[in-house]
Amino acid sequence: MLTLGTVKDAANVLQGAARKTDLILSKTLLEGHNIYLKSENLQLTGSFKLRGAYYKISKLTEAQKAKGIIACSAGNHAQGVALSAQKNGIKAAIFIPATAPISKVEATRKYGADIMLIDGIYDDAYKAACEYQKQTNGEFIHPFNDEDVIAGQGTIGLEILEQLSDVDAVIVPIGGGGLISGVAFAIKQIKPDCKIYGVQAQGAGSMYQSFFNKKILELPHVNTFADGTAVKRPGDLTFDLCMKYVDDIVTVTDDEIASAILALMERQKLVAEGAGALSVAAAMFGKLPIGNMKTVCIVSGGNIDVNILSRVINRGLLKSGRLCHLTIELLDKPGQLKDVSAIIADLGANVIRVRHNQGGQNTDINDCFLKISMETRNAAHFEQIKNALTAKGYRITANEQ
Amino acid sequence: MLTLGTVKDAANVLQGAARKTDLILSKTLLEGHNIYLKSENLQLTGSFKLRGAYYKISKLTEAQKAKGIIACSAGNHAQGVALSAQKNGIKAAIFIPATAPISKVEATRKYGADIMLIDGIYDDAYKAACEYQKQTNGEFIHPFNDEDVIAGQGTIGLEILEQLSDVDAVIVPIGGGGLISGVAFAIKQIKPDCKIYGVQAQGAGSMYQSFFNKKILELPHVNTFADGTAVKRPGDLTFDLCMKYVDDIVTVTDDEIASAILALMERQKLVAEGAGALSVAAAMFGKLPIGNMKTVCIVSGGNIDVNILSRVINRGLLKSGRLCHLTIELLDKPGQLKDVSAIIADLGANVIRVRHNQGGQNTDINDCFLKISMETRNAAHFEQIKNALTAKGYRITANEQ
Repeated sequence: MLTLGTVKDAANVLQGAARKTDLILSKTLLEGHNIYLKSENLQLTGSFKLRGAYYKISKLTEAQKAKGIIACSAGNHAQGVALSAQKNGIKAAIFIPATAPISKVEATRKYGADIMLIDGIYDDAYKAACEYQKQTNGEFIHPFNDEDVIAGQGTIGLEILEQLSDVDAVIVPIGGGGLISGVAFAIKQIKPDCKIYGVQAQGAGSMYQSFFNKKILELPHVNTFADGTAVKRPGDLTFDLCMKYVDDIVTVTDDEIASAILALMERQKLVAEGAGALSVAAAMFGKLPIGNMKTVCIVSGGNIDVNILSRVINRGLLKSGRLCHLTIELLDKPGQLKDVSAIIADLGANVIRVRHNQGGQNTDINDCFLKISMETRNAAHFEQIKNALTAKGYRITANEQ
Repeated sequence: MLTLGTVKDAANVLQGAARKTDLILSKTLLEGHNIYLKSENLQLTGSFKLRGAYYKISKLTEAQKAKGIIACSAGNHAQGVALSAQKNGIKAAIFIPATAPISKVEATRKYGADIMLIDGIYDDAYKAACEYQKQTNGEFIHPFNDEDVIAGQGTIGLEILEQLSDVDAVIVPIGGGGLISGVAFAIKQIKPDCKIYGVQAQGAGSMYQSFFNKKILELPHVNTFADGTAVKRPGDLTFDLCMKYVDDIVTVTDDEIASAILALMERQKLVAEGAGALSVAAAMFGKLPIGNMKTVCIVSGGNIDVNILSRVINRGLLKSGRLCHLTIELLDKPGQLKDVSAIIADLGANVIRVRHNQGGQNTDINDCFLKISMETRNAAHFEQIKNALTAKGYRITANEQ
């Protein structure tokens, strides 16, 4: 049974094996508010998952350890299990769908685990892992629906209370619910008036749906940019703990998550993955009544593919009106590029790319287009530039803010 | 005069005004080595500059404070001075060259400083700041050549000794030399056997040149991606302190800096700017005899424009053979795209973009090109794919690793 004693035991076991991650005060993420970031993206393996996996493995008997452990994951759980096994000198077989990003597979391999790349999606890898388990009788390490795993994640709750004893609210990302179950359980035992809020991605709201329908629901499909939380069905243990200890659950959109990732990079110099930015997205976009409460956002992980990060940056800049693309119709006569450049420069935008097209399918043969990409301060600044161009007689045929 | 007492006084003054930044152990930046990161990119304002500026301002007389302060900077010093002035309730006028990135100007403006955007480069802004100083008789806050500023930066040295008492070596980025002067001075007073190594960008090695020529040299021009360290001439105070307390200075290339930025993002989930990644670049690329020494790299700042970050990611992926572009000559007949795709997939690379060109200027009218971008594990993996394609008779006409 899960008790506060178990969570405290986990904290002891994790000393030296997991980092006590910094709690970072941010005054800039949400204007006029103090938001504290529990930086589990700076945890070893890049996510909180190490805590639960390590504690679970530490509790196995010598006989169980000798048979080796098995896990199925394309992401953070894989790395958490692999490093925990390595530190405990145990063999680990990690089943990964072959579609997983190369960077995640390589990171897991580096911790010395046997990698089983299985053709297909997660469910195929899971099936293969179960078969392997039957053959070897090894211990299957569940990513969330396990009391020891939950106790391990709960150590984050103890650390938050130690680092900010007068905390009023904690916002926690939810996938299968292991993290929030542990944190909510631990904090409510010690400080029952502290609010615990959960956040899910809109496209993967299985716990959200289950919570408000008061019964476990399975979604037919999940689709979110926060891939670490794409879970179709909550566990029964985690569902029960959420019903008992969580005050509210909200959802955020993929665009809100992308904005939060960008804000964490620019203002806090922290790399967060989609799942890791859920809590910050909920705070930034006013999803929760945190008012002047001392609020902790758990930034649960930072394992985001850098190629994807590149795209998130661009999308975030476009959405906030700081990167703008403009197509202007020009007569093909001298001086117009100079004129347009002057208008833009006078209004303080930085041109970063210019493309000049000698006519297109739908224009007169004398016409040409000018495509300009520029850095602007915000959406209003972009409007101002468009108005100035229009006032000078230029026709804007396309723009993307 | 600079004394250990002054540095300790600065540490007291900075309590509550600056963060005591985390010292983060990394086992993955340099295979087989323990590297500790002093994360000043997580400092308020995103860089260590706050420390020196805040301490300097705290030592001004009430009469000086009433006249306001003046600074000239396009970057971290501007933000450090602006926040320090705001916290002390003093007026600050910050002179910034108009070519500075919008994001840095806006960040400084947010701390309530008066922003003076001056047409031209840094030297023009500096001239304007000096004229303004004569008019107002305000206090000019030098970015590095000032004993109080140096004492403020020295508090990082005290924190390192507190966080890792058996530290063997500290690697410090150098621009004007304020940071390394303070850190070297503080550490050598307390632990003289700890090595202090400086790092400069190859294109801005003013202290490097001066150090080995044993006299202050001014470079005719500086050019580096680590814009925070683009200083033509070291200060006399900082030069003297480096000669006395620094064990060695090395340089790194812009490509090495870009690789370090990428490694910090991917493996440590930390955003560093060019200057901030200098120390890590020196460690990663074997520039210093750190062997098994307990080595601290100061990651001095994280204020990098996200547009530039996007480019750094791409360049870093290309350089390490993890993002590859390939142009293949094809006969325009069916089945070839399928064949090429199969060869690439079988070898475990992920195709991320395909472009199909119906003939080019230098090809037969029947020929066409296939441009493929793919994610690979490393340069050897890319070679393997190219060899497999060549073996099947495909002609690779261009490739960029």
